[in-house]
Parts: sequence; C-alpha cells; structure tokens
Amino acid sequence: MVLYYYSLAFGIVALAFSLIAAVITLKKDPGTKKMQELSDAIRSGATAYLNRQAMTIGVFVIILSILLYFLQNGGQIVIAFVTGAVTSYLTAYLGMNVAVRANVRTAKAAEKGVKDAFYTAILGGAVTGFAAIGFGLIGISLLLSYLTISNVGILIGFGFGASLVSLFARVGGGIYTKSADVGADLVGKTELNMPEDDPRNPAVIADNVGDNVGDCAGMAADVYESYVVTLVAALLIAAAGVSQGIHAFTYPLYIAAAGVVGSLASMFFIKTKGKNATPALYKGIGSAIVVSAILDLFITYHVNFPITYFVAVLSGLVLAMLLFAITDYYTGPGKRAVLKIAEAARGGAGTGVIMGLSVGLRTTFFPVIFVVIAILVSYFSAGVYGIGIAAVGMLSLTATILTIDSFGPITDNAGGIAEMANLPSRVRNVTDALDALGNTTKATTKGFAIGGAALSATALFVAFSAALGLKTIDALNPLVAAGIFIGAMLPFIFSSFLMEAVGKTATIMVEEVRRQVRTIKGILTGKAKPDYARAVDIVTVNALKALVVPELLAIATPIIVGLVLGKAALGGLLVGMIPASFVMALFMANGGAAMDNAKKYIESGKFGGKGSDAHKAAVVGDTVGDPLKDTAGPALNSMIKVVSTISILLAPVFLAYALF
Amino acid sequence: MVLYYYSLAFGIVALAFSLIAAVITLKKDPGTKKMQELSDAIRSGATAYLNRQAMTIGVFVIILSILLYFLQNGGQIVIAFVTGAVTSYLTAYLGMNVAVRANVRTAKAAEKGVKDAFYTAILGGAVTGFAAIGFGLIGISLLLSYLTISNVGILIGFGFGASLVSLFARVGGGIYTKSADVGADLVGKTELNMPEDDPRNPAVIADNVGDNVGDCAGMAADVYESYVVTLVAALLIAAAGVSQGIHAFTYPLYIAAAGVVGSLASMFFIKTKGKNATPALYKGIGSAIVVSAILDLFITYHVNFPITYFVAVLSGLVLAMLLFAITDYYTGPGKRAVLKIAEAARGGAGTGVIMGLSVGLRTTFFPVIFVVIAILVSYFSAGVYGIGIAAVGMLSLTATILTIDSFGPITDNAGGIAEMANLPSRVRNVTDALDALGNTTKATTKGFAIGGAALSATALFVAFSAALGLKTIDALNPLVAAGIFIGAMLPFIFSSFLMEAVGKTATIMVEEVRRQVRTIKGILTGKAKPDYARAVDIVTVNALKALVVPELLAIATPIIVGLVLGKAALGGLLVGMIPASFVMALFMANGGAAMDNAKKYIESGKFGGKGSDAHKAAVVGDTVGDPLKDTAGPALNSMIKVVSTISILLAPVFLAYALF
Repeated sequence: MVLYYYSLAFGIVALAFSLIAAVITLKKDPGTKKMQELSDAIRSGATAYLNRQAMTIGVFVIILSILLYFLQNGGQIVIAFVTGAVTSYLTAYLGMNVAVRANVRTAKAAEKGVKDAFYTAILGGAVTGFAAIGFGLIGISLLLSYLTISNVGILIGFGFGASLVSLFARVGGGIYTKSADVGADLVGKTELNMPEDDPRNPAVIADNVGDNVGDCAGMAADVYESYVVTLVAALLIAAAGVSQGIHAFTYPLYIAAAGVVGSLASMFFIKTKGKNATPALYKGIGSAIVVSAILDLFITYHVNFPITYFVAVLSGLVLAMLLFAITDYYTGPGKRAVLKIAEAARGGAGTGVIMGLSVGLRTTFFPVIFVVIAILVSYFSAGVYGIGIAAVGMLSLTATILTIDSFGPITDNAGGIAEMANLPSRVRNVTDALDALGNTTKATTKGFAIGGAALSATALFVAFSAALGLKTIDALNPLVAAGIFIGAMLPFIFSSFLMEAVGKTATIMVEEVRRQVRTIKGILTGKAKPDYARAVDIVTVNALKALVVPELLAIATPIIVGLVLGKAALGGLLVGMIPASFVMALFMANGGAAMDNAKKYIESGKFGGKGSDAHKAAVVGDTVGDPLKDTAGPALNSMIKVVSTISILLAPVFLAYALF
Repeated sequence: MVLYYYSLAFGIVALAFSLIAAVITLKKDPGTKKMQELSDAIRSGATAYLNRQAMTIGVFVIILSILLYFLQNGGQIVIAFVTGAVTSYLTAYLGMNVAVRANVRTAKAAEKGVKDAFYTAILGGAVTGFAAIGFGLIGISLLLSYLTISNVGILIGFGFGASLVSLFARVGGGIYTKSADVGADLVGKTELNMPEDDPRNPAVIADNVGDNVGDCAGMAADVYESYVVTLVAALLIAAAGVSQGIHAFTYPLYIAAAGVVGSLASMFFIKTKGKNATPALYKGIGSAIVVSAILDLFITYHVNFPITYFVAVLSGLVLAMLLFAITDYYTGPGKRAVLKIAEAARGGAGTGVIMGLSVGLRTTFFPVIFVVIAILVSYFSAGVYGIGIAAVGMLSLTATILTIDSFGPITDNAGGIAEMANLPSRVRNVTDALDALGNTTKATTKGFAIGGAALSATALFVAFSAALGLKTIDALNPLVAAGIFIGAMLPFIFSSFLMEAVGKTATIMVEEVRRQVRTIKGILTGKAKPDYARAVDIVTVNALKALVVPELLAIATPIIVGLVLGKAALGGLLVGMIPASFVMALFMANGGAAMDNAKKYIESGKFGGKGSDAHKAAVVGDTVGDPLKDTAGPALNSMIKVVSTISILLAPVFLAYALF
C-alpha cells in the first residue's frame, strides 16, 4: 500500500542518520595505543558476549519458529517473528559496536574539554537511538505493505520477535553487568581499597564490558521492543475496527515519522559547554516534544481526525517528559530523597538500606498517577484507540531518549579508560563529570523505559481483548481473579531469579578476583597484568546459564495459564501483571538509583566522605541497589511485553484448545 | 432470631475458656522478685503504650462515628462500628495483659523443664486466641439478633470498627517493636558487643515491650479483624441473595462454632516434652482441622446444603495448613532457602541482603497458587457464596493459630527475663529453645494471617460488588484500569511510610542509647541502671506520631477514588490492591524471617559463628528484614481490610455523590 512508503521513507532517514553518526564517531581520534588496547579489551569482551548470547537466542528462535509454523499454520507469521528478532539484535549490535568505540574517543576528546567530549558521547549514543527507530519503522512499513487489513494480526509476530530478543538482552545483560560490577567492587573497593576502574582489579574489564552489554545493548533492545510493540498494538486496535478508515492505520505511523523529525531536531539542543549538562537534556527532550507535537497537530488535520485524537497523542508526549522529570526529582544527585538515604547510612548499613527501600517504594506514587491520567485522558479523547496512539506518541520520542541513555555507558567507559590509562587529572575531571551525568541519564531514561513499557503493555492488553473478541475482562469471574493473582505474583518470582543469579555470579567473581590477587604475583603493585579475559569469560558463561529459567518462566506462564485456565484467566494474568510489574520496576530502578547516588553524595566528602563508616554503609546500599536497578527492575519491562505479545500471538491456539 | 443463639453460646464458651486460661496462668509462680521487677517494667511499658494508642484511636473513632452518623443517616451503623472497635481493642488488651504476665511465669516454669514452660506459654497464648473468637462470635450474634435480612448491611460497620483498630495496632505496634529492636541491636550488639537482652542495654525493656505490642496486641487485632470481616463478608454475600434461605446466614456461623470446638480440641495436642516442639504445632493445627471438618460435614447435612458446600469450607481449612507448612518450608531454621542467605552473607552484607530479597520474592509462588486453587475450588463448589464460606472455614481456625502465635512473644520475653535476671544456664537453655521455636511460630502464623487477609479481602470484594449491585468489574473499562493501577501502587506507598518510620525512630533510639552509655557512668559495668523508661517513652511517642500518615492514606484513598472516579474505579482499586498487597506481604514477611534465621544459623556456629564477618553481614540482613517482616508486611493485612470495608461501608455515599 502506497501509504506506508511515507513511514518507510522516514525509517530510512533515521537509519541513514544513525549510520552517518557512526561514521563521524569512528573518524574521531581514538587516542594513545594504551587507550586503544583498553578499548579493544572491552570491545572484544562485549562482542564475544553478544555473539554467544546470539547463539542461545538462536536456539530459542528456531524452536519457536517451528512451533509457530505448525500452531499458526503459516509461514508469514514466522517471517514476521524472525524479522522482529533479527532487527532487534541488529539494533543492539550496531549500537553497542559503536558505543565500545565511542568510549575511547570520548576519553580522547576530553582533552579538549567538556563540549567536545559531551558531543562525541552523544553522537555515539545517537547511533543506537536512530538505529532503533529506523529498523522499527522500516520493518513495520515493509511488512504492512505486504499485508491486508484482515491479516494485519501477523504483525504481532514481529513484536514477539523483538520482545524475545529484548528479554534475553535485558536479562542476560542485566545479570552480566551487575555480577561484574558487584564482584569488582566487593573485592576491589571494599577489601583492597582500590578506586573505581583500577587496572589492577582483575574484574575491571568485565565491569566495563557489562556497562555496554547491559546499559547499551540491553536498553536498546528494550526500548526498540517498546517502540515496535506499541506501533503493533495501535495497528491491531485499528484492525479490530475500533476506529474506521485506512487512516486509523497510517495515523500511528505518521506520528512515528513525526517523531523521527522531532528527534533529529533535538540533536541540535543536546549540547553543553559547562559541566552541568542537565539543562541540555531537558532542552533536548523538550525540543523533541515540541517539534513532534506541532507535526502531530498538522497530521491530525491532514488525515481529518478530530482534534481530540491529537490530545491523546499529546498526553503520551507529555507523559514522557513527566516521567523523566519525576525520576530526576527522586534519584538525582543531591535530591532530598537521596540525602535521606545518606543520612540514614550514618546509623549503619541496615538503616541505610531500610531508607533506600523506603525511598524506592515511595517513588511509585507520581509515575502511577501520571500514567493513570494519561490513560484516562487518551481514552476519553479517542476511546481504546486513544490509548494506542498515546503510547505511540510517547514512544515516538524513542530516538532522543535512547541517545541520551546510551550516552551513559559511553561516558562510564570513557571514565574507566581515562582512569586505567592514567590520563592527566585535567582530562579525568572532564570524564568524571560526564560519568556522573551519565549515571543520571541512565536513571532518568529508565523512568521513560518503564513508563513506556507499562503504557505499551496497556495498549497490548487492549489489543489482546480485541484480538480475542473479549467484550469484558471481569474481575468477578473467578478465572479472571485467578489470573490476576498469578499475574501479580509473576514479577516477584521473575525478579527473584534475577536477584539470585546476580548474587551467585557475583560470589563466583569475588572468588576469582581473590584467587588472581592471591596467585598472580605483582598484581597489586601493578607489575603483573591480571587475567582480565578469564574474569570476562566467567561472567559470560554464568550470565548465559542464569538466563534460561527466567526466560522460560516468561514464555511458559501465559501458555500454561492460557491452556489450563483459558482466555479469561489469561486476560486476568495481564491485568494482574502489568500494574504490579510497573510499580515493582519503579521501586527497584529508582530505589537502586537513589542508593547509588547516596553513596556518591558521601563520596563527595559529606558525612565523613570516602572510607568513613557512613560510606561503608552506603556501599552496602549501593551493592543491594545494583541488581535492583540494573537487572531485575529493567528486565520487568521486557517480561511484561513478552507475556503480552505471546498472549496475543497464541490467542487462536487458546481459543481452540483451552480447558475452560 | 433464635438461630443465632447457637453461635452466641459457642462464643460464650470460647470467651469462658479464655478467662479460665487467664486465671490458671495468673495462678502460676511468677518467680523471684528480680524477675517480677523486670516483668513489671515490661508490663507497664506495654500498658502505657496501649493506653496512649487507645486515645489516638479514640479520636479517630469519634470523628468517624460522627461522619458515619450523618453520611449513613443512622445510629445503628455507628453502634456496630463502635462495638467492632471496642471488642477488637478488648481482645488485644486482654491478650496482651495476660501475655506480659505469662512471660515471667514461663521463665519460672523453665526451671522444671521444657514441658511445663511450653505449656505455660501456650496457655497464656490461648487467652488471646479464644478471646478473639469469643468476642467475634458474641458481637456478631448479638448484632444479628437485632437485625433483619434487609439491614444486615449494618454489620459492615462492625467489620470496619475492627479493621480500624487493627490498622492502628498493626502499624503502631509494628513501628514500635522494630524501632526498639533495631535501635537496641545497632548499638548493643554491633557497637558494644552485648548479647541479646543484656540488662545494660538501655533499649532492652523497650525491645521486650515491642514484642508484646507488636507481635501480641498487633497480631491479635489483625487476626480478630480477619475473623470478623470474613464472617461479615459471608453474611453480606448471603444477604445479596446469592444463596437462598435462612441457613445461608446460619451456615457460616455454625462453621465458626465448629471452629470453637476444633480449636478447643487442638489444645490437647499442642504439648511437648522434648525441645523439638514443631511436631506439636503441626499436630495442634491438624487436630483443629480434622475436628472442625468432621463437624462441618455434619453441619452441611444438618442444614440440607449440597455436599459441594462442604468442599468449599474444606478448601479453606486445607489452605490454612498449606500456608503454615509452606512458610515453615521457606523460613524455618536450617531450611535450604535460609542456608542460601547465610552462604551469600559470606560474600558480605550486600550479597547477603540481595539473596535475602531474592528468597523473599521467591516465597510468593506457592501461597499464590494455593490461594488461587482455594478460590477456584470454592467458587466451582458453591459460587461466590463458596468463596465466602471457604474464607470462614479457614478463619474458623483462628483460636488455634492465634494461640500458637502469641506463644512467640511470651517465650521471647521469657528468654529476655531469664537473661536479664541472670537465671542459671540450665533454665536459659530451655527458654532459648522455646524462644527459637517462638520465632518459627511467629513466622508461620504470619503466613496464615497474610493468606487469611487475602482470602477475606477477596470475600469482601465479592460482598462489595454485591452491595453495589455491580454485575461486572471490567478491566477494559478505563476507570477500572485506573483503579487497578492505583490499587497496585497502594501497598508500595503504604510500606514506604512504615519503613521510613522504623528507619527514623530507630535512628533516634540509637542516639538515645549512645547518649545514655556516654552520660550515665557505670552503665557498662552494670553498676548503674540505664534509664529504661526514657527509651520506652521515646519509642512510644514516635510510633504514635508516625502512625497518622499511613492511617490516613488507607482511609482516604478509597474515599478519594470513590468520589472522584466512581464505583467502577473503586472496584478496580480493590482488584489492583488485594493481589499486589498479598504478594508484597509474603515477600516482606518471609524474606525478613528467612534473613533472621540465616543470622541465627550463623550464630549457631556455622560459617565462623558469632563475631565473624559473615555474622556481621547477616546482622545487616536481619536489620533490613526486621521492618519488612514485622512492620510493613503484616500491616498490609490490615490495610487491605480497612480499604475493603470502608469501600463497602461508604458505597451508598459513592453511589449518590461520585463524579462518574
């Protein structure tokens, strides 16, 4: 259909910009030989992990493709599924491969000052951001051009492919990054009093690899998935005849295309000269929203939709900004909630963690209220279709958010390389400032990712009921109630496995680091080089091993509930799971981020500074917060989307074979 | 109506047994003058707290009574409300007043061996257990005899009164007990290397008072409330005409009466000679279930109900046993999950807490599956009425469970008195063994309390929809969805305030203890007595202060949601809140209990024993787990019942004034 060539064109523009950004980044000066060596070590570790992870995912994709082929009786959905999986991995792969080269170039650029280093890191991040929307728009537009309205349901295969990869990337990357981080810190910082990123620490390369496979590749796959499934959900809702006319299909794609323009515009505003770059981030997101909103208004007129449809889209755009700001409010350095934790840490690790958990729990309030308002506004503006396009509006900002997010692991690595390569303190001051900012961007963009996942899952839930022709999902039906209870439990069990995996793998890392320090002579004086590769290998193997159970849990639960308790219970499962996972993800991500910044606050010299009792207590809090914020919390985003997409995908099967 | 005289009679029997148990307990030898002094100090602290708490509650009761009188346009519901509140407080008051006297008598009886001491503590606990069901049955029977079927809704006032007091008792008692405990431990154990219950610790009396106001009075009010509201919910469901005939009303009361007999029978089986008394607990609950089930079967025939109704009741009875056993499986001393935490503590406090949280999250699985099965079995046996009577069946075991539970604080205190009075090690070995058992009973009965709260809230939810005449509560309705999101968030925000209150009050306690150690000369050598009263006073004042915000949160949320978003959203609120609170309560209570026992495991000499690094790490875990398991977790039980009862109570108001 000719109408989809527009979105295809904008997808190509986004991908082209991503590639241009990649080329510009790679042309920059990669610094000294020592710096390049370090960067190479990180890159080879990260690439090795992504390659091995790809093999594990490949097995799942092949088995599921065969199953889908027979269950759904068709090859089209298998093609959509494989395309979704491959484009997701490509996004993560491309983004990360540039990120692991942008890190050393950012460290080098730091010699010239904040402005250049900041710009290098942002440009490196933009590769991921624009690749995500590029692949997403191209994939969906191409698929759509071969489909008719009656079989637009095939698209869910594409969404499921993206979800599956995202779950692997989030879970595997999350376990990897935090096992390495906690392992490196527990021996390095706590036992041996080394600073962060000390080259004598055998786990230091693994730690830096983790930033890339977790914060960069994992996050990219997660947000790519949200972007894709949100578009798919809106199209499925349109196909269910809730809204009529061909523009019900093109409207969401036009909004996504407007987002490409808005995101490109935002690149002109994310610039800074001074060290306080937070205003630049707000300006970036703000400009993306304003430009997108203007275009969306124009589009609404162009397709002859009521102005209320624009209100629905706008509610999604505004929600993105609110979630960004509220996360900053709770977890930003020096904020009140962070100070409370730092103060409580003076009473010991116990009271510090208690207060950290309390803060994490508290941060659920405003995001929930914001999401509720967005749902109500969009629904009363444009019905269930409104919820779909509100989600599309929010996710149309994906490129900007992902750019800012990928900035985090790049600057984190740049700081690590500067430290390990022993660059002059002038340079390290710059990388340290950017690293601190990167921590904030990682935390705040997580608020977007979590809220985006919740809103897109809500849209998927609407699409699910439309796909199954469910007129109600009635909590008074005991089967629905049963599903709700199981759904509310799912994020708890899922998180439990991830926390355990980090706890166990970190313990193995601790033993390995202790072993190397004990057996390799001269390691502490810097005369002998630690065996970085072995540490990298240990985390890789264990992260991949730990990945299988939670993965199966997310895939099997909806299938079992659907087959045993039927479609009503499956609806209940989504009803119970989405809000519970949303609040759990907020609690974990924000609580962890606040504890991290409480530790940093004390390290800045407050309450006795580094080495004080309060600092030791805060380090414990940070350790507890690490798997909460970077493993379990974000992985819930992927979990709810996998469960939602698989529920829609297999709906025909459940209708045919379910017991109830 | 003459039919309610039966349940009235059984209520009187239960209350009479409670009083007899009290008299027998008080006649026992209270030990030496020193022991009595200690017991007196604990008692006066506990009584002072309950008295001051009563004044705070009184203010709320008066304000709410006036509001209710005008809103509901009638005095009957106010009378029911006040009666519910007063009987709840009486139960807690009576039970605790005997418990604070049974403690010293248990310590004295320990001279003669395990058997006598165990029996003394159990008998002391029985006072609370049987008072609860006595007051409950008498109150409801008397009210019913004045009501007709058309105004049986008045009963919800009784349930709300009990809920309100329970919320205060759980929240206030929970904050009290853990602030004192954490405060005492942080300075006493960690800084000064004192053993538990060292008389030189200024917070030691406050700590022992906390056991009583939290674990005894708080738990009594909580389970009393579950008992009462479950009966009320069953009667409301009956009144909604879901089941027909007068026996729809008498049947739940007969089951409750059967529970009186079953609980009395169980008293013959909760006996032990050896130190391993766990089998005695299983025998006690098992016998209560068997006797009750036989009587329930007889009753079902007697009232000419289908046998499937008995199946529904039985599912509730079996659920009670399963929840007891599964909690034991996860949190019992030396269990696999506990060992995992202890092992992780060898890597440091961070990994220990990570594993503790992981275990807590994991424990949600089986209880949820069990509750889901109970809901499905009872519904498919006897419709929505089945859910009501399943809950009544489960809660008919209240007296036995509460007896076993109250055993905990009594033996905990007995151990404290034995330590403080410096009794011979032979005696202390006995009290230590009972104290350890008491920890298990406190944890396992919490599983019952949480599951009971979830099931009774589910019954209340059914009653709510019946009372409002809601045919569906449809998650596809965006107002319902909004309510669900807010409901899922409520336990998080609520817990946040409680965790913060404990963190803050504990910090104040730490400062006070440090101050006393610094300023009172000879305190550490035992020559000068610490100022126990001041420590008690500090916790009292701060616990009562911290109590107001969470209390208002629980009361105001349903009112605001009901008035602003209407009855559908209010239904959604319950749908979101009940399962999320259930899993949160399980996570917190079990995670905390497992971390506590991991610490005890190391203290028993494993992994380096007391004073080792692993032990220090485990102490941090225990500190974090304390407010999870004894403050936030259990308080959620009361929260969900308050929100549920207030939703039903004010339903007519929402119907008249809501915006939607």
